[in-house]
Formats: sequence, C-alpha cells, structure tokens
Amino acid sequence: MIFKIIAVGKIKNKALADGVETFLKRLSPYAKTEIEEIRDGTPESEGKKILDALSREKGFVIILSEEGEEFSSIQFSQKISGLNCKIIMVIGGPYGLIPEVKKCGDILLALSRMTFTHEMARFFLTEQLYRSVMIAKGKKYHN
Amino acid sequence: MIFKIIAVGKIKNKALADGVETFLKRLSPYAKTEIEEIRDGTPESEGKKILDALSREKGFVIILSEEGEEFSSIQFSQKISGLNCKIIMVIGGPYGLIPEVKKCGDILLALSRMTFTHEMARFFLTEQLYRSVMIAKGKKYHN
Repeated sequence: MIFKIIAVGKIKNKALADGVETFLKRLSPYAKTEIEEIRDGTPESEGKKILDALSREKGFVIILSEEGEEFSSIQFSQKISGLNCKIIMVIGGPYGLIPEVKKCGDILLALSRMTFTHEMARFFLTEQLYRSVMIAKGKKYHN
Repeated sequence: MIFKIIAVGKIKNKALADGVETFLKRLSPYAKTEIEEIRDGTPESEGKKILDALSREKGFVIILSEEGEEFSSIQFSQKISGLNCKIIMVIGGPYGLIPEVKKCGDILLALSRMTFTHEMARFFLTEQLYRSVMIAKGKKYHN
C-alpha cells in the first residue's frame, strides 16, 4: 500500500512527533508512507498549497474533518484495503481547512466527535493506518 | 473541579506518558486531578480492583468504552462543568472492561468510533479534560 499524508506545519510537541515516527517505522514493512508538510500561514494560503499538492497526486483522497463521517477501525481498514490505489490524506492546521479543500475529498473522515489538536490528529491517524494494515493482514495488534 | 482517573497499568510508551504529564500540569491551576493505577492482570482481576476503587469514591462516574456515547468537546465540557461533584473516570486495559464495571458508570463515553490503545486513551482523555476546562472558562485553546 502507498500512503501519503499532507499536513500543515511541523509537529512542535516532541512526544507527538516521536509517536508519529514510531508508527511510521512500524508501518514501513507493510506500506510506503510519505509525509508532505505544508508551511503554515493563513487558512487561505495553506488551502492553496494543499490544493497544489493534491493536483500533483493521483489516488483516493481522505480529508480529515470534524464534520466528516466516522468509521470503526475495522470499517476503516476494510475501506482502505479495498482500494487499489495510493491513499492521500489531508490534515489541516489549527484553524482548519477551507471549503475548497474539503470538496476535494473522496471522503471526509472524522477521527472523533471531539476536537483534538492537529498534531494529535497526525499521531492518531498514523496509529490507525498501522492498525488498519494489521487488521487487513490478520496480525495481532487490534483486539 | 476534582477529577480522578482510574486506569489499568502504567503507560509504557514514554511519549504518551510525557503527553499525559503535560496536560495534567496544564490542568493543575484549574482542577485537582488524581490518577490511580490498577495493576494489570486478567480482565476479571482488573475488574475486581476497579470495582473496589469505585466503592471508595463518591461522584459522577464516566466509564470509557467503545460502545459508549460520543460527545463533541463542547458537549463534554457542558456535561462535566454542570456537575457539582467529583468526576471519576475509568479506562480499562488492553482487553477492555468486564460488564460489571461498565454497569457502574453514570455514563459510558466513547472517545471515538475507532479503537486506540488504552495508553492513547489516557492521553486523549487528559487533553479533553484540559480542553473542557478551557471551554468552560472561555479561555483561548479550543478553536
């Protein structure tokens, strides 16, 4: 599988940056995962850069948004395992995503009804990608 | 406000342990938060110890469970800010909670439809407690 995460800004919280690295490393035998960090700015400038980055990609686009649809981990695993293409995920910055970006998603995904920081969202998402792959492969990780 | 988190086991992941500590420290000017760690074992032995711990407490009991109800951060803040008593939260271990514990909750709370590790759940919960207090006090944190 090929994953790409387009995210706004660098993770400043060291604990979360380490958490993301841990799951990217654990994912590496199973999937190629690339992270493209967009420089943070205004929601409009960030949105423009995300749209540019998306225009260079071909695949299934998942936009993380609190207004999105929720999936269980098993449903999410089934959803992404069934796709035969690159999976591109977009995580906005602290002020969210402009509507033009949200319109580009094949799905809008909500990780929770609760709001978390965008840095936490990146960490949660990498853990869910690893969990999804473990579920799809029938490996022990997801109870 | 007085919060108590009853959780199974110690957090082994250093990044997550640091994340929990960060939010407990940020919460400290606004709320007294105590964590009681139950020694991990079988679901039954963990359940018995949680029930013992709960029997020594008086307050509103929130049991974290994937089958629980979901709240937005604002709804969660309104819910807990409206309570005039100690708030006791229970987080199970990797193999979840026995039904007897789930029955003790005034509410069952799901942080997400997705499954996360119990260590991540403790981190997410402490962030949500901090976020809730910031929302209730009208402080800048929650966008």
